[in-house]
Amino acid sequence: MAVNLKPPERLHSVAGIRLASHAAGIRYSERKDLLLIELAQGSVTSAVFTRNVFCAAPVVIARRHLATAMPRYLLINAGNANAGTGPAGEQDAMQCCQQLAVEADCREVEILPFSTGVIGARLPAEKIINAYPQLIKHLDEDEWLSAASAIMTTDTVSKAHSRRLTINNTDITITGIAKGSGMICPDMATMLSFIATDLKMTAEQADALLKRNVEKTFNAISVDGDTSTNDACVLVATGKSDVSYSQLTPQETLAFEQALYELMKTLAQAVVRDGEGATKFITVRVEHASDEQAAKQVAYTVAHSPLIKTAFFASDPNWGRILAAVGRSRVTPLDINRVSLFLNDVCVVEYGIPHVSYTEESGQAVMSQAEIIIRIDMGSGDASSELWTCDLSHEYVRINAEYRS
Amino acid sequence: MAVNLKPPERLHSVAGIRLASHAAGIRYSERKDLLLIELAQGSVTSAVFTRNVFCAAPVVIARRHLATAMPRYLLINAGNANAGTGPAGEQDAMQCCQQLAVEADCREVEILPFSTGVIGARLPAEKIINAYPQLIKHLDEDEWLSAASAIMTTDTVSKAHSRRLTINNTDITITGIAKGSGMICPDMATMLSFIATDLKMTAEQADALLKRNVEKTFNAISVDGDTSTNDACVLVATGKSDVSYSQLTPQETLAFEQALYELMKTLAQAVVRDGEGATKFITVRVEHASDEQAAKQVAYTVAHSPLIKTAFFASDPNWGRILAAVGRSRVTPLDINRVSLFLNDVCVVEYGIPHVSYTEESGQAVMSQAEIIIRIDMGSGDASSELWTCDLSHEYVRINAEYRS
Repeated sequence: MAVNLKPPERLHSVAGIRLASHAAGIRYSERKDLLLIELAQGSVTSAVFTRNVFCAAPVVIARRHLATAMPRYLLINAGNANAGTGPAGEQDAMQCCQQLAVEADCREVEILPFSTGVIGARLPAEKIINAYPQLIKHLDEDEWLSAASAIMTTDTVSKAHSRRLTINNTDITITGIAKGSGMICPDMATMLSFIATDLKMTAEQADALLKRNVEKTFNAISVDGDTSTNDACVLVATGKSDVSYSQLTPQETLAFEQALYELMKTLAQAVVRDGEGATKFITVRVEHASDEQAAKQVAYTVAHSPLIKTAFFASDPNWGRILAAVGRSRVTPLDINRVSLFLNDVCVVEYGIPHVSYTEESGQAVMSQAEIIIRIDMGSGDASSELWTCDLSHEYVRINAEYRS
Repeated sequence: MAVNLKPPERLHSVAGIRLASHAAGIRYSERKDLLLIELAQGSVTSAVFTRNVFCAAPVVIARRHLATAMPRYLLINAGNANAGTGPAGEQDAMQCCQQLAVEADCREVEILPFSTGVIGARLPAEKIINAYPQLIKHLDEDEWLSAASAIMTTDTVSKAHSRRLTINNTDITITGIAKGSGMICPDMATMLSFIATDLKMTAEQADALLKRNVEKTFNAISVDGDTSTNDACVLVATGKSDVSYSQLTPQETLAFEQALYELMKTLAQAVVRDGEGATKFITVRVEHASDEQAAKQVAYTVAHSPLIKTAFFASDPNWGRILAAVGRSRVTPLDINRVSLFLNDVCVVEYGIPHVSYTEESGQAVMSQAEIIIRIDMGSGDASSELWTCDLSHEYVRINAEYRS
């Protein structure tokens, strides 16, 4: 069902990163569901985690470990979120870290655990631990593709992307993987993403780069920044390229950041394209708002309306529902008579009422496409905001009604 | 599909109120879709309208008229919302009022227009006006039942309720009708309700009674008080009983307010029971919150989660989704380790983790019922809040995908 999304074909390896995945039988049988990522000594890691107060055990531990040491290993399992499991869940996650520390010869705090899957079930720590010898033995720089598959839950397509740019006669690589799918918006299921580059940078630089770009990418598919119990996005800079972020010219800095942004945008959009039951990829763009907060608020209200989402599923240009969402977005001041609405290039509403040239047929023609841009011109300022969402289909209800059955 | 909702069988007439409905062919054929309610001279009317900035033409006019004069007639059509129709829409609504004023021999400002139905289509004013002679001719005190049917849109069951109480040896009647259905929450379609009593009261008394009780009833099925383009709730006191609200004893005042509350609660819950595609009636009750605002916020976050709604449709006791919603409700401070969760009387989560006695079977037994109470104990104060919602089913998607087709 994914909208214009193909599985990745080839990914550049990143010097300093080795990966291995394994079928540990955590929830799924006959597929890989466990991933180990080894980060070369000296790598710098930054991560953003869910803002949900009810966060999973691995999030608690990963946060704590990251505050203590730079990680050497990322351990990710699919099929079990280890959330709502209380102290026992934290012990399970700790046990996985402790045992890995022994077998991989590192400190326990140098391991960040991540989990995605069903909430409330105990993590089968033993199955995970039993897989360590195999995982460690098979660590390899060229295992990005299978890594992308191993972290999938209800994803129908694996999500990964690679960018390479030349700086100072050196190839710099950025490669990332992501999983989502449970999400029509990110309060609905776990989004995980792991991105690595061989550029050298400080922890502060990695933090700033990650946060700035998460805001415009993974948080632009988000409900007010709300996230699930397990969400995380990780950026690792191995520094193996010997090119340092600090030494880049302004143009090179821009080029690198642009490449990182494009990669993260591609991954974030892939999550939406593979949203549960999605048949349409929808960009909500709010322009000429009084300020950015207002622009975001309008975009979120539109993107989260089940009525609008079902209308898009039905290819119904029901602009009244969109205007009604703008009207109740609580942005102040809001003069509906200054608001115009476009579906792709078709002007549907101008200054609050249907545009004279608008016909149901022209709206219908846009709505029947798989990629649709809803552009809302607030006519009241210079701020804008963009986010990505998908439609609400029968399939969404089916998937979520049957997820645990 | 309505959950435990039967059509009303008998309604008490209210002295001073006459009603007539007519099949005007506005959108539907072969059913009544136009309602006229006549209010006796001296009646007092209070109304609350949608807070949506993008409100319909009739709302603009009804607000203006009500600010000018006490109404003698309420004119309600189904099938066309007269919203998103700009100045032309206001002219259409005005024209309906002007012509009715002529034929019913009153002032134009003494008429309040209401519309519900499709957004963005011009109101067929002529069809409405042509029906006036028939409507006026058939005005009758005993037409409440057909009035409840005439205002339906995608409602599957008409909604009405009557209460009678004896005060000072006099029978006091309250009768009301409502329509909803487009709403799983009230930002999604029009909710209209018209309630009348023969008690005598001042405009200020009617305003206070209406607002106080709307808050606990029609706004307890609401998204943060968000409403559609056309929502309205009207309370008329004809005063024909010769019993005056001002003269009631404290006990009598309480009895009347309780009766009004019960009636409004019955109507509001009926709207949820007949929510589009509803198969479950869900009460979300948040207790021991730090303050009422926090309690409401948690209840709304739970009630609006599509993930939770689909789990209820599937009779899946997916408590992790409920806890995740509590966790992202942005209530501060929030300690998930003090939160307990009950499904009806089954304690599912105690202090943030599954209760020792909880089994999937016991959760499942509750979830298979048609009426479910989600009780969330925040363990942090004395405030509570309750609201009513329904599940999200395949049928919801079907109805809303096909509404205009």
